[in-house]
Amino acid sequence: MNEFELIARLTRSLPTNESVVVGPGDDCAVIECGNVSRQLLFKTDAVVEGIHFNTDTPPEQIGHKALARCLSDIAAMAGTPTAALVTIALPKNFDSKVVERIYAGMNVLAQRHGVAIVGGETTTNPERLLISISLLGSVPRGKAVLRSGAKVGDVIFVTGELGGSLAGKHLDFEPRLAEAIWLAETFPVHAMMDVSDGLAGDLRHILNASGVGAELLKSAVPISRAAKVNAKRGDAAKPAFVAALTDGEDFELLFTVSSKDAVPLLDAWKKQFLNIKLSCIGRIVSGEGIRLRDQTGIRPLQAHGYVHFS
Amino acid sequence: MNEFELIARLTRSLPTNESVVVGPGDDCAVIECGNVSRQLLFKTDAVVEGIHFNTDTPPEQIGHKALARCLSDIAAMAGTPTAALVTIALPKNFDSKVVERIYAGMNVLAQRHGVAIVGGETTTNPERLLISISLLGSVPRGKAVLRSGAKVGDVIFVTGELGGSLAGKHLDFEPRLAEAIWLAETFPVHAMMDVSDGLAGDLRHILNASGVGAELLKSAVPISRAAKVNAKRGDAAKPAFVAALTDGEDFELLFTVSSKDAVPLLDAWKKQFLNIKLSCIGRIVSGEGIRLRDQTGIRPLQAHGYVHFS
Repeated sequence: MNEFELIARLTRSLPTNESVVVGPGDDCAVIECGNVSRQLLFKTDAVVEGIHFNTDTPPEQIGHKALARCLSDIAAMAGTPTAALVTIALPKNFDSKVVERIYAGMNVLAQRHGVAIVGGETTTNPERLLISISLLGSVPRGKAVLRSGAKVGDVIFVTGELGGSLAGKHLDFEPRLAEAIWLAETFPVHAMMDVSDGLAGDLRHILNASGVGAELLKSAVPISRAAKVNAKRGDAAKPAFVAALTDGEDFELLFTVSSKDAVPLLDAWKKQFLNIKLSCIGRIVSGEGIRLRDQTGIRPLQAHGYVHFS
Repeated sequence: MNEFELIARLTRSLPTNESVVVGPGDDCAVIECGNVSRQLLFKTDAVVEGIHFNTDTPPEQIGHKALARCLSDIAAMAGTPTAALVTIALPKNFDSKVVERIYAGMNVLAQRHGVAIVGGETTTNPERLLISISLLGSVPRGKAVLRSGAKVGDVIFVTGELGGSLAGKHLDFEPRLAEAIWLAETFPVHAMMDVSDGLAGDLRHILNASGVGAELLKSAVPISRAAKVNAKRGDAAKPAFVAALTDGEDFELLFTVSSKDAVPLLDAWKKQFLNIKLSCIGRIVSGEGIRLRDQTGIRPLQAHGYVHFS
């Protein structure tokens, strides 16, 4: 049983109540709180030493990344973050100065996005540092953008560039909060999520939740400079396009809109966000799974996102 | 720098915003959500293998304890829990059946208290299991019972019995949610918290937050059977009264009310909760710190809760 199968099994029988609007399976849970105009967003995310960062990662960047990942999930619902709780599990003989620097990195990011840090706790995890962030946000009533709203004929967009995030971006990316709110206020966005596990895997989450398929245009997928540089490192390196599909930790917005909105959206985006790329990478089709189109034709993308190109 | 000093230092400069009613330092944060009659409670808590449970602890009890600790913090504010997110960091080669049993333990408790489990995540923590729970709740507007409301002349109460929790209670205790709500609805409770670090240490949190001192009546402190059994194990064992003051993990309610409410409260409690002890253990006095009264007189309790009795 892999992680996704286990989660699917666990979430089948979870207790629920009347406050739950959206439960497990989207970027955030959506919860009623008795506010007539807004609903709550609720999200948790953890980073672990040796997996999401290393012993030599500057503590400020660890703090930044821990909070930014959660903020990116609020962005994925077109929400506004409100308040965070921070749990830090510290290894033995941990230097308190390092904890202060982790908080310094979080605080700067929190302040920039108007997020309060309202508490948390420290506990012990003898072998490695682990930080778990819990985040509350809100969204206009009924306006949370879910993964399940993609429709046949929609156009698929992605912000920024993909792949090679481990070269640095994964530690200092800026969550796309303002962009997501602008998008949802300006156009009817049908489905949205943030790209954290790689475009190929994450697009499948939208497709499965929406009961549709997708056709990606290979030449349209925006490949990061880091992915291209990595690809030139030798024969064993991942091709840049494969990196863009599978590297993960991009924390860009992946979303679909009606095809009639595609050109107006691109025009309006360029005026609004001069320095952030927006790419139309394909369209939603009937059926399931992802097909990839290039000069040579169309072929299905492998199930787990990895593609074997000659 | 110890844990409390570090937290004090970190929380001095945390970002805040207008939604924050109560920030770090109480059992839960209190947050505005635009509901005219209620406010949100927000709490996170983690349990770690080898610290809060062992490798041979039944997984159902691990799940129970992880959620129950958070629920106890909601109780400490006289709140109602709403929705939880569960982060499980799994060691290598972890059996998915164990994860299912952890969830089974959580689900039963969540269901009993009407709590929805709305998602979470699994991640990797190679050496040991760690579970972090994030919990949302709510409380009538302005009615969260804080640690800071104790007044000189108040009577101090504690539910249940204290000490020796590690003999078993820490794994299967029932959070005092119904009791706390009944208390706050029936009497003006001035200050409340749950006893998680031991009566001596936790009472000090109320005293410091309220700017007052306390006089405890030694003979009135309810000592658990487990603490008494432990004390008989030999000369090296902790005396039962010291265990009741310092063992921790009791998860009982510690609260103060006006002295005029003390007798009516005891009477009403006995009718409402037949099987749960309620003890009047002392009173709030001016000054600071805890003094202990027994047949021989009054003496100050040591700073960190541990008392050297002959």
